[in-house]
Amino acid sequence: MSNTWHLNPDRCFSPLPEQRALARDIFTHIKNLPLICPHGHVPPELLSNKNATLGTPTSMLVIPDHYVFRMLYSQGVPLETLGVPTTDNTPVETNHRKIWQTFADNYYLFSGTPTGLWLKDELIQVFGITKKLNSKNAQDIYDELNHKLTQPNYQPRALLKQFNIEYLATTDAATDTLEHHKQLHTEGLTHIRPTFRPDALINLQNPDWHQTIQTLEQQTNQPITNYQTYLNAIQTRREYFKQHGCQATDHAAQTPHTQPLTPTEANTIIQRALTNKLEPTDNERFTAHMLMEFARMSTEDNLVMQLHIGSHRNHNQPLFNKFGSDKGADIPQQTNWTQPLKNLLNTHGNNPNLTLVLFTLDESTYSRELAPLAGHYPAVRLGPPWWFFDSTKGMQRYLDATVETAGIYNLAGFNDDTRAFPSIPARHELWRRTTSNWLAGEVLTGMIDEEDAHTLAYELAYGLAKKTYNVPDA
Amino acid sequence: MSNTWHLNPDRCFSPLPEQRALARDIFTHIKNLPLICPHGHVPPELLSNKNATLGTPTSMLVIPDHYVFRMLYSQGVPLETLGVPTTDNTPVETNHRKIWQTFADNYYLFSGTPTGLWLKDELIQVFGITKKLNSKNAQDIYDELNHKLTQPNYQPRALLKQFNIEYLATTDAATDTLEHHKQLHTEGLTHIRPTFRPDALINLQNPDWHQTIQTLEQQTNQPITNYQTYLNAIQTRREYFKQHGCQATDHAAQTPHTQPLTPTEANTIIQRALTNKLEPTDNERFTAHMLMEFARMSTEDNLVMQLHIGSHRNHNQPLFNKFGSDKGADIPQQTNWTQPLKNLLNTHGNNPNLTLVLFTLDESTYSRELAPLAGHYPAVRLGPPWWFFDSTKGMQRYLDATVETAGIYNLAGFNDDTRAFPSIPARHELWRRTTSNWLAGEVLTGMIDEEDAHTLAYELAYGLAKKTYNVPDA
Amino acid sequence: MSNTWHLNPDRCFSPLPEQRALARDIFTHIKNLPLICPHGHVPPELLSNKNATLGTPTSMLVIPDHYVFRMLYSQGVPLETLGVPTTDNTPVETNHRKIWQTFADNYYLFSGTPTGLWLKDELIQVFGITKKLNSKNAQDIYDELNHKLTQPNYQPRALLKQFNIEYLATTDAATDTLEHHKQLHTEGLTHIRPTFRPDALINLQNPDWHQTIQTLEQQTNQPITNYQTYLNAIQTRREYFKQHGCQATDHAAQTPHTQPLTPTEANTIIQRALTNKLEPTDNERFTAHMLMEFARMSTEDNLVMQLHIGSHRNHNQPLFNKFGSDKGADIPQQTNWTQPLKNLLNTHGNNPNLTLVLFTLDESTYSRELAPLAGHYPAVRLGPPWWFFDSTKGMQRYLDATVETAGIYNLAGFNDDTRAFPSIPARHELWRRTTSNWLAGEVLTGMIDEEDAHTLAYELAYGLAKKTYNVPDA
Repeated sequence: MSNTWHLNPDRCFSPLPEQRALARDIFTHIKNLPLICPHGHVPPELLSNKNATLGTPTSMLVIPDHYVFRMLYSQGVPLETLGVPTTDNTPVETNHRKIWQTFADNYYLFSGTPTGLWLKDELIQVFGITKKLNSKNAQDIYDELNHKLTQPNYQPRALLKQFNIEYLATTDAATDTLEHHKQLHTEGLTHIRPTFRPDALINLQNPDWHQTIQTLEQQTNQPITNYQTYLNAIQTRREYFKQHGCQATDHAAQTPHTQPLTPTEANTIIQRALTNKLEPTDNERFTAHMLMEFARMSTEDNLVMQLHIGSHRNHNQPLFNKFGSDKGADIPQQTNWTQPLKNLLNTHGNNPNLTLVLFTLDESTYSRELAPLAGHYPAVRLGPPWWFFDSTKGMQRYLDATVETAGIYNLAGFNDDTRAFPSIPARHELWRRTTSNWLAGEVLTGMIDEEDAHTLAYELAYGLAKKTYNVPDA
Repeated sequence: MSNTWHLNPDRCFSPLPEQRALARDIFTHIKNLPLICPHGHVPPELLSNKNATLGTPTSMLVIPDHYVFRMLYSQGVPLETLGVPTTDNTPVETNHRKIWQTFADNYYLFSGTPTGLWLKDELIQVFGITKKLNSKNAQDIYDELNHKLTQPNYQPRALLKQFNIEYLATTDAATDTLEHHKQLHTEGLTHIRPTFRPDALINLQNPDWHQTIQTLEQQTNQPITNYQTYLNAIQTRREYFKQHGCQATDHAAQTPHTQPLTPTEANTIIQRALTNKLEPTDNERFTAHMLMEFARMSTEDNLVMQLHIGSHRNHNQPLFNKFGSDKGADIPQQTNWTQPLKNLLNTHGNNPNLTLVLFTLDESTYSRELAPLAGHYPAVRLGPPWWFFDSTKGMQRYLDATVETAGIYNLAGFNDDTRAFPSIPARHELWRRTTSNWLAGEVLTGMIDEEDAHTLAYELAYGLAKKTYNVPDA
Repeated sequence: MSNTWHLNPDRCFSPLPEQRALARDIFTHIKNLPLICPHGHVPPELLSNKNATLGTPTSMLVIPDHYVFRMLYSQGVPLETLGVPTTDNTPVETNHRKIWQTFADNYYLFSGTPTGLWLKDELIQVFGITKKLNSKNAQDIYDELNHKLTQPNYQPRALLKQFNIEYLATTDAATDTLEHHKQLHTEGLTHIRPTFRPDALINLQNPDWHQTIQTLEQQTNQPITNYQTYLNAIQTRREYFKQHGCQATDHAAQTPHTQPLTPTEANTIIQRALTNKLEPTDNERFTAHMLMEFARMSTEDNLVMQLHIGSHRNHNQPLFNKFGSDKGADIPQQTNWTQPLKNLLNTHGNNPNLTLVLFTLDESTYSRELAPLAGHYPAVRLGPPWWFFDSTKGMQRYLDATVETAGIYNLAGFNDDTRAFPSIPARHELWRRTTSNWLAGEVLTGMIDEEDAHTLAYELAYGLAKKTYNVPDA
């Protein structure tokens, strides 16, 4: 065991020498391909502002990352001590060095997790750290990172180039002004694109719904008084997004239930929403209807439609009351796709203009429902393993469970889905290594012809994501 | 990489040298065992007619195989261009060479799928093709196949012998005349057997139900006017099938819900069906009742009862409207067995006369419900991985998830479940290779004693299927 | 193949030489750690009585073990012939030699099962048997075992020492007198502890409920006439258990549904139970309420709360009628945790005084719900693979599915959950070998740093169980 912290050069590869050698060979051919990032949550202001930095080590790696602080929280570390901001004005720890120390004291908890691997990869490959973080060296490493983060070559704009990112889509509220994207495009950084996410407009129970509607009215210069004007305004915003380079929409829901309403029914619900008279099932019925509508719009404007289904958001109510959403308390739930998505697929799934990318948090649906759907409907593509499953084992299970039925070409390639900008290369490398190793295994067991393996590796690393999201050539 | 297309002689075996060597050794001892095919969909007329051929390469491999055309359809190839017949008289492509070219152009889509492996195995081992199919060589390979298909040694009867098929059960409507089986048996081909599938009689919502009932009346020379005459007619047909060598029945349903009706309730529903006055839940309740009745009948006549559960048939309604059923649009759905099957098992599951073979499309039920049921109820045996899971990985997951709880001896062995006659050897070989490799792994990890592995391989390849389906010695 | 029956010294280890060597190294360092057994079903009288023996080979290995006789039953061996006692006075086989012969005749059925492996390990390592049990040597092996079982070094007290058991918790009805534990503690055997299991008091439909309540009244010297006195009595028993060394409670339910009742509602239901006027949903609602109450009590008295969820008990009604419960007819069912457990977790899941250990029989919930819950809520720990999944493959699937999201430190370590006392070392060894091998794989694929693997192996084998259950140092 060496004193220097190092990344296993064969990480994610089988320890079997024959497979490892072939995996390495396949990986070598694809590891330097540019990164296609068609879905993620990088704040666009990080890139639109030439002078933006990543802040302190703590504000970069701990405070905004629910993957990180949920693990510490699960072992009894209060979020307050990690500087996670509250929504009820309870004061929290503001000393970043102190927070960093707590993080370092608990760093061992990440052993065996993808977060642990991303952090390690990022600290070594992006920041050149040579010692494993622990309680003793915490302050020294803080110093080293903190110093580097002030250097120009660690600014987001510099890293964007260094990371070889060919295309990066952010995720943006339907009412976003897209000012950051405009700024970026003015400067010629046209590979940073917005994604149209209208969830806040659809969720009629959202406490901010009325305010969001008002914003929408202002942006579209049209009062929203009924379902038709509501729909028109959404359509107008889609066009606006498209004019600013948007290629895709994104929709989150607890279930993929789809069911059309008549225009009259839809209008009745909108009227009740506008007058604060929602009835119990209104929101659910309206979501089921609007998913149909968004599919229809996609057949008309060709925006790729992404569906992220199955997260029970803000499961921990007391925590939500104090800290708000996205605090590591989103828990997946059992999901069915076959019956719930039938209406949408029967209406639009055979339409060559629709690309519908499905993401699940219920792995039992990979082989049971999603691969058979993707292996039949022309519109359907399978998104890569999402969230908790964005890991070596998650990727292996995904490939094992889907490819035999859907083939490789009905997969949507990879996306990193991250708001942690400096972790992007680590995430893509994990995918590229894991898919290379998986393909090596397929070749050695005679499932895939060796001459195909390199092509398929290229597709998984680069080609499929580009095709699925209609990414223009760089 | 060689220019000649070849099958990896160690396909389906672990690349680990120790395991590969043992897997090869185990496989060598079982690879030439005769094939037991107790469940499948080979059209009996293919064998009863001495002069039948397999047609053109296209009519053999593309037009009738929903595994093949669903994959092309999922990537945007219209079924019309593949010559798939419509039910609404829309004309489709009739040029088999042109269809073959489209197939060849898209052949790369099957990389990593069992269909791809079966096709490769069949083309190489049955038809002696030496080049991988692609756009350029498509017409040459068509010529070669087309020529061979006219030769006597490629006629179904010749292949039946060459394939070393000891027993082959077809699947036949309860109202089938069994004329082909009679013809076969007259010629001494008594190893081709019918299977009694009464689904069309049970599904009261089936548009052809009335016509099927009329056929049944004619065949049994008895008017069907109430539940008792309906049941008598079914019983008569079972006897007829049994007289013609039938050993098993087959039943498909969306769920395994079982619940007896009183004779009066059953009669009320039949009366409503006969007078076109079905009520909403009638069909579901009647199916739940009839599954109980079929189990009872099996305890009396010893026909093995097969249950295929969990397929949402004809999910793509527009496609169904144009092309009818079995067009690749059957999508699995989430399935529960424990509570739904309880009534049947409580009534008949302890009966030594019943053998009930269960097939699932929800792999999460393997370890959770099916293995525990098979590891307790004397009547229950687990059917092999079905449909989408009839693959190397599907088989490994099945064995991994079921054997620890159910043991090997509560499995039903293998069946190929295919209508693609020339693919039969490839499918059995895949199973035999995969089970040999799995057993080798068990031996090397100390889970199974080496002296047992050969016996268990024999059972999985041959013995269990024979025992489960009461197959007479050849 | 040797004539001597032997245990593969590398069992449970990958056959890959690199992984095997590392697994062996890791295992060597932990294999002799004392056994922590915080959950199980060893009858305490086996240990409190100094002169107790394990009986005959048949009464030790066959008659009481539903893992064993369910397998034979599934292959048509009547339970009567195995000497399993009936509750309806039907006579059963009493000749233990004859039963043993039947067991030996069917011993091959256990090939590939954990029961087979435990039996083999136990027969070889505990009892020194050198031939694999079969029909021919059955009586010789019976003689050998029977002789040894009369020897002092095979008495439970001797084995307890020999097995190096540091801590062993039994599972005891809330109304148990704990006389055996008192006797043990008097003799200084304070490492044998009771566990508080109140299921019989909670299940209002339990035919023995009234009798259990009467026992409770006598034990607490207080009439139970309403919800408050009922709750007081339970509280009194918890205190009694705690005084006698109890560290944990255990609760079984079909679902983890939790929902508080008002005291008035709870009282209404208790009144209906006391007067035999239960309404249909009363039992379910009361269970959902009492799970909340037990969590609250645990926050007050620090007893670790265990939840075993998802078994459909006594699925085979005719068998239950004849033989009673625990006869191998408990079948898992599909389980959801996210929504059902939300009320409990929202009320108590952030409380640092609560440790809630969750056990599932639905493996699809590992990655989907349980790991995300454990990786967020401070109170939640994941119990080890339960029942059907207490096997090498079950453990691998568990680690593969949970660690990436929950980390190692949110796992509860191992428990053997067994009533088969002499199988305890075999079960722990299986876990220790399998976790060592799993960690070796993680190291070789670069997922876990090698210097951490030994620490994690120690935690999985010993540390986590001790921490989770607050086991005092020996």
